[in-house]
Amino acid sequence: MPHIPFYLDDRPAYFGGFKRDYAESDFALFGVPFDGTSSYRPGSRFGPDAIREASANIETWSWRTGTDFEELRLHDLGNLAVVHGDAGETIRRVGDTVEDIVSTRKIPIMVGGEHLMTLGAAKAIKGCTFVSFDAHFDLRDEYLSNRLSHACVMRRVMEEEGKDRVIFCGVRATFGEELRWVKENGIKFMTSRDLLREGTKSSSSWLREALKGSEKVYITIDMDVIDPSYAPGVGNPEPEGIHPSLLLDMLQEVIDERVVGFDIVEVAPKYDMGITALLASKMIFEICTMMKRK
Amino acid sequence: MPHIPFYLDDRPAYFGGFKRDYAESDFALFGVPFDGTSSYRPGSRFGPDAIREASANIETWSWRTGTDFEELRLHDLGNLAVVHGDAGETIRRVGDTVEDIVSTRKIPIMVGGEHLMTLGAAKAIKGCTFVSFDAHFDLRDEYLSNRLSHACVMRRVMEEEGKDRVIFCGVRATFGEELRWVKENGIKFMTSRDLLREGTKSSSSWLREALKGSEKVYITIDMDVIDPSYAPGVGNPEPEGIHPSLLLDMLQEVIDERVVGFDIVEVAPKYDMGITALLASKMIFEICTMMKRK
Amino acid sequence: MPHIPFYLDDRPAYFGGFKRDYAESDFALFGVPFDGTSSYRPGSRFGPDAIREASANIETWSWRTGTDFEELRLHDLGNLAVVHGDAGETIRRVGDTVEDIVSTRKIPIMVGGEHLMTLGAAKAIKGCTFVSFDAHFDLRDEYLSNRLSHACVMRRVMEEEGKDRVIFCGVRATFGEELRWVKENGIKFMTSRDLLREGTKSSSSWLREALKGSEKVYITIDMDVIDPSYAPGVGNPEPEGIHPSLLLDMLQEVIDERVVGFDIVEVAPKYDMGITALLASKMIFEICTMMKRK
Amino acid sequence: MPHIPFYLDDRPAYFGGFKRDYAESDFALFGVPFDGTSSYRPGSRFGPDAIREASANIETWSWRTGTDFEELRLHDLGNLAVVHGDAGETIRRVGDTVEDIVSTRKIPIMVGGEHLMTLGAAKAIKGCTFVSFDAHFDLRDEYLSNRLSHACVMRRVMEEEGKDRVIFCGVRATFGEELRWVKENGIKFMTSRDLLREGTKSSSSWLREALKGSEKVYITIDMDVIDPSYAPGVGNPEPEGIHPSLLLDMLQEVIDERVVGFDIVEVAPKYDMGITALLASKMIFEICTMMKRK
Amino acid sequence: MPHIPFYLDDRPAYFGGFKRDYAESDFALFGVPFDGTSSYRPGSRFGPDAIREASANIETWSWRTGTDFEELRLHDLGNLAVVHGDAGETIRRVGDTVEDIVSTRKIPIMVGGEHLMTLGAAKAIKGCTFVSFDAHFDLRDEYLSNRLSHACVMRRVMEEEGKDRVIFCGVRATFGEELRWVKENGIKFMTSRDLLREGTKSSSSWLREALKGSEKVYITIDMDVIDPSYAPGVGNPEPEGIHPSLLLDMLQEVIDERVVGFDIVEVAPKYDMGITALLASKMIFEICTMMKRK
Amino acid sequence: MPHIPFYLDDRPAYFGGFKRDYAESDFALFGVPFDGTSSYRPGSRFGPDAIREASANIETWSWRTGTDFEELRLHDLGNLAVVHGDAGETIRRVGDTVEDIVSTRKIPIMVGGEHLMTLGAAKAIKGCTFVSFDAHFDLRDEYLSNRLSHACVMRRVMEEEGKDRVIFCGVRATFGEELRWVKENGIKFMTSRDLLREGTKSSSSWLREALKGSEKVYITIDMDVIDPSYAPGVGNPEPEGIHPSLLLDMLQEVIDERVVGFDIVEVAPKYDMGITALLASKMIFEICTMMKRK
Repeated sequence: MPHIPFYLDDRPAYFGGFKRDYAESDFALFGVPFDGTSSYRPGSRFGPDAIREASANIETWSWRTGTDFEELRLHDLGNLAVVHGDAGETIRRVGDTVEDIVSTRKIPIMVGGEHLMTLGAAKAIKGCTFVSFDAHFDLRDEYLSNRLSHACVMRRVMEEEGKDRVIFCGVRATFGEELRWVKENGIKFMTSRDLLREGTKSSSSWLREALKGSEKVYITIDMDVIDPSYAPGVGNPEPEGIHPSLLLDMLQEVIDERVVGFDIVEVAPKYDMGITALLASKMIFEICTMMKRK
Repeated sequence: MPHIPFYLDDRPAYFGGFKRDYAESDFALFGVPFDGTSSYRPGSRFGPDAIREASANIETWSWRTGTDFEELRLHDLGNLAVVHGDAGETIRRVGDTVEDIVSTRKIPIMVGGEHLMTLGAAKAIKGCTFVSFDAHFDLRDEYLSNRLSHACVMRRVMEEEGKDRVIFCGVRATFGEELRWVKENGIKFMTSRDLLREGTKSSSSWLREALKGSEKVYITIDMDVIDPSYAPGVGNPEPEGIHPSLLLDMLQEVIDERVVGFDIVEVAPKYDMGITALLASKMIFEICTMMKRK
Repeated sequence: MPHIPFYLDDRPAYFGGFKRDYAESDFALFGVPFDGTSSYRPGSRFGPDAIREASANIETWSWRTGTDFEELRLHDLGNLAVVHGDAGETIRRVGDTVEDIVSTRKIPIMVGGEHLMTLGAAKAIKGCTFVSFDAHFDLRDEYLSNRLSHACVMRRVMEEEGKDRVIFCGVRATFGEELRWVKENGIKFMTSRDLLREGTKSSSSWLREALKGSEKVYITIDMDVIDPSYAPGVGNPEPEGIHPSLLLDMLQEVIDERVVGFDIVEVAPKYDMGITALLASKMIFEICTMMKRK
Repeated sequence: MPHIPFYLDDRPAYFGGFKRDYAESDFALFGVPFDGTSSYRPGSRFGPDAIREASANIETWSWRTGTDFEELRLHDLGNLAVVHGDAGETIRRVGDTVEDIVSTRKIPIMVGGEHLMTLGAAKAIKGCTFVSFDAHFDLRDEYLSNRLSHACVMRRVMEEEGKDRVIFCGVRATFGEELRWVKENGIKFMTSRDLLREGTKSSSSWLREALKGSEKVYITIDMDVIDPSYAPGVGNPEPEGIHPSLLLDMLQEVIDERVVGFDIVEVAPKYDMGITALLASKMIFEICTMMKRK
Repeated sequence: MPHIPFYLDDRPAYFGGFKRDYAESDFALFGVPFDGTSSYRPGSRFGPDAIREASANIETWSWRTGTDFEELRLHDLGNLAVVHGDAGETIRRVGDTVEDIVSTRKIPIMVGGEHLMTLGAAKAIKGCTFVSFDAHFDLRDEYLSNRLSHACVMRRVMEEEGKDRVIFCGVRATFGEELRWVKENGIKFMTSRDLLREGTKSSSSWLREALKGSEKVYITIDMDVIDPSYAPGVGNPEPEGIHPSLLLDMLQEVIDERVVGFDIVEVAPKYDMGITALLASKMIFEICTMMKRK
Repeated sequence: MPHIPFYLDDRPAYFGGFKRDYAESDFALFGVPFDGTSSYRPGSRFGPDAIREASANIETWSWRTGTDFEELRLHDLGNLAVVHGDAGETIRRVGDTVEDIVSTRKIPIMVGGEHLMTLGAAKAIKGCTFVSFDAHFDLRDEYLSNRLSHACVMRRVMEEEGKDRVIFCGVRATFGEELRWVKENGIKFMTSRDLLREGTKSSSSWLREALKGSEKVYITIDMDVIDPSYAPGVGNPEPEGIHPSLLLDMLQEVIDERVVGFDIVEVAPKYDMGITALLASKMIFEICTMMKRK
């Protein structure tokens, strides 16, 4: 067996209830129970375990892809040993873990934890275009005296890969200065209102077009992109979001063999009674079957 | 007065706040506070009382039917004396109660409690087609070593009446083996996605067609057929469900004098802060006015 | 500085986190933490502070109007010193406060608290047409032996201004007797079902038409007009409501310089985990930018 | 059957699960779901039903008195039809109800609801000494512009009966001005600290002494007299209270045939997960058996 | 390695966070997530996992015994695969599991789940005296038509071993008929009041005396023996209980090499916010160090 | 007015509801809403605001000291602008703030937030003995790869002032290695069990003795020193703690003019429904009156 990821805590975990050997798996899922920079409603540290628990209690058939998730080969590495109070070190560990997973030719699935953790993936996977499904741009240069904040993550990702390598879908919460920066720098985005007005077909075309020329694609899903009625259990709920089927239908149109990994972040299970974690686990099921199919 | 139902516990209860003599009523409602086989999120035992409390706090006008629920004649029998830990005996009591109600020419309305309780109705009302609004098929032959489980109820109902006597609407959670069995046995169903795509008109036509030739119809509504955004307080919430108006509009199209009874099950009020029980009580109001009108 | 409003309690408060001098402001917001006549689910007294807290944690850009809320001039007067157990006196204080605000040429924004408080605004602002977004008519003559009840507020407002001076949008919960009175008196209304069927464009036209001839308009929004999936945290949730975007899109079409004030009432934050207060604060942001724009 | 109490709402209710005819009963219990003047944590309106539910789920044996509560004759009249938002009228109804009960030679047991309701009992039962177990004196002359407030109830009671006719046990929350008034007027009290230091024996002696010469005694128990560790679910929890056994042991020493009624008020069940309502129902069981024994 | 226990579900679990091989361990802990006969507040099925989570977040030193729990050898077998809705079969599996553990010379520790599960241990370990720390006798012959109910468990245990082989400590909730039976049959018990009055020393002497002549002792702790202020998260909280230190001090006096196993049952974690599960896990730590010491 | 503290966020706040000018005050209170290194149950960031809200709803008389808190002069500086995710910088800001307060001859009162924040006070006030009321020693050298963790705070404080300058009261949660270090280094401590056995008098004597020779004393109170029955809302609840009156009685015996400041930390209000914050605010009232008296 090849070198396997560092920094895992030693509690075993089985997403979906399934046990696969790492060596025989196609997907390697890991949780990052870190929410240290959350400024409003902390608690995404409890996301990974809540999503796992939900995943063991839903059915496995994907109607979109005609596949049973049970047939896929996913290994759950458990949770990363995060350093509470040290975001930088935790990001480094995420990066090392993603690097290890990729080096063994598995597809990494990161379950947050806060959105800042996506920066770890960005540091590990080079030459990639990031598709960010998020209600927010997260493009502040610093937030509350902090450059390593959830509100800055996409700015930091851009510093790794370039401003044209991040595409935003479903964004709707911003402020004048950030939006000016977005426009001045020609950042590509569709708001949630755009997505709803255009519908799956047209929105997917736009995104496929935007991804032309990219050789690798990484998808990061902040659960707050979904409307709070479907996903109330997030750190920063924002009204007027999209519904889950629109997101999944778009992904089905867009996902192809260029997708090298994905993450789902910002589920804060203390702020609802279970439906957000259930939705997140269902989304992981669906996305995995999309990646298999193709 | 004729022989009246057995096995009721002796707490008085008034759905909607109304008191009618049993003898003068058209509908006889009873609760079944049983959730003994729940494997994921128990608590539907608290459903009947939560739905009654909600029913006393909403208005009574039905815009769909132009009727005031207050004008209907419904008697609330209170709750069944269930045997916690003995599903078989509890089902038998449900059956006896439904039989008693039907024998006195009232329309039974059962408020769950878990979906398994519908088997009691199936044992009592023979020669009936069952329309199941449910996110799940509940067609496992056994579940966690148990043939009398909520996950098996429709399989057991089919054993009473035949595989062609159950029609599924809004189903979306299954697994490969169950779906194969469904297809091999020619079970009639529309998924939630089908319903949403086809819309009320077309979906209702399909259902009316599927009911052709049936002399009696029983409607069973597992609240998880509704999307978790509208009905988070259920035992097994499943994303990508239908909205309540679609369900009620379909029922309005389909309900006719062949409908001999209905149930609403799986409301688990500890998993939200009231909206699921409110919706369930509103649905009972609406369905009763539909049954009266015709 | 001119005479400023009476009866405020002395806790400072900053809606949106912004501090403006009263003298330099265009909008004057105040909370009314009163829920004394609530009969079902009390707790709207906690609405004003929950909405303020939410308002400090969301972004400020309005895509509808292309304005940053931060650019507006809003002064938060804090909460009214209500008299728990004395609805009449509290209404009088609301009236005096609104009168003071209007006399200093600011636009009053009242944050409830229960809907009955709108009667205070009606007493202060004469010659006005009221647009009520509410799931209920609130047109009972008395409720539970009480003429000053949330269930009677619009009847009392009509006694101030005339039956033709209240227009209802999104209504859906009523009972036979109230609906007969509504029809006999030619009250103008669109149900939630009407709004959903007609859509923004057509509904807005109807409302603009209904407002023809009015010289002043006051908008009162009972959060229960919104569907419980989006706004579960209200005193009287009612299924089959409208979605928030429909409400805001209508308002954008309708709001013009005749609008002299508005309120948002009935947020009861103990009945959800934050999303209703967030939505209410976002709605205040949006409505203010609409009023500025024109 | 004699004239029976007015103003009850029409929901049947069975404290302890027992049904007795009013005519054959010794005790007549009724709930007062009113919390209109609560200024901090409202919700005692939900107290009566929570206490009833708890009462049906605990055992009935009293070790103190060697009696089974089931042997007592208690009739549950259900809840008073309160007027939310009109404290004065609600107090009047309490008074009438207590008067009716007493006139039929039953012992009234009032279950609150807020402490202000005790004023109704004081108006109905003349010539009585009141023993108040409460963390607070409730002796303000007015509170937040209101003379009919929970914080003023004992001042109002004194106006009915005289300053020497109220005795305070377990008091610990006050402020300088109130305490000066207490001392200047020679009000009799023991603080919680006094009770804990003196113990049951000595404290009971003091109370028996203080009651010498009284011909009738009414006991009013604000649940906040108990330490918040045992009774967190109250409107105004106050640290450093007494434990429930001390209270019950004192009552056992003191209760004799002069006791004409009692109440338990201020249980606010939303502020815990059941233990305060359970304790209150157990206390009612115990106190009734004490009153029977003698 | 010897034959190891059947019927475990396959999720790994590590009480206290420690991993020991089964073969090298002295204690074998397993969870029984079953609450099928709970009649009041179900949810003890969630007890085992809540207790494990708590156990990983508390410190390990025992001041009573001067031992670090970490030095003990405990293997966590995980949870039993219970059959929801079939108490009899689940008890049989508990019995088989305890038998297996005992046959491999480990000490079984069962974590409930409901108290009925103790019957499984009684069937597996013969010739044993049971010490029951419980607020209730659980000696009904049947409860709600059910002989296999939590309210009957000690009656069933007596049928296995004899009426003199069960000793009750801390009992306080009963009813006349049960208490008569207890007295007629000479059952040994101390009430919570007895324990509090006598104190640790004297109570322990009584218990040691009562255990004279017993060759094997099994200790069963229903968490409701503890006062609800310390342990609110149980199925049937009962006021006027004992404090945790009294229970642990007594156990330290009494536990000797005759103790062959113990269980802690009825923790229902949804009814508090963590302190009951924390206490239960601490009690397991303490009891294990007591059993080691001797 | 002298130079005043840096780094405050700009929301006004009034502990106890009182407003005093800074210049005229004796006490300067500030909140530190930081919980970044919390490893088990985060949420103490919400402590300061919850404690303030509670403080405005309790009475002000102190029976221990015969003083009304309202007569004291306390200024509430509001909350520190913490840097989420950067414990070191946040500690530095605490230090600067304490230094500023002390330099203007006010007594600093810090309201946490997590216990690590006490390190800021230690850095600002030199030559001080620290009395730590805490269930834990917090003497790890590092915890989860982090030297700036709540579990290490007293080790860091000792590095500032010396091992003999920290005295522990009420400690009960530790592990073998830490306890060995404590003993080898002659650290002074009394366990909760010691305090309970010795009682107020004797425990206070010990503490006064231990403080002999100290010129300045700083008191830090981690709310988990209190038993979880009284203070369930903390980050790390630990069974078998002390009761609040014991703590306050000891403080009354010990506090003299050498006390230069104090803090109360680790209140996590999401883990109860209010009683822990209420107790903390009462403790601040009591302690301030003790400091005034002398």
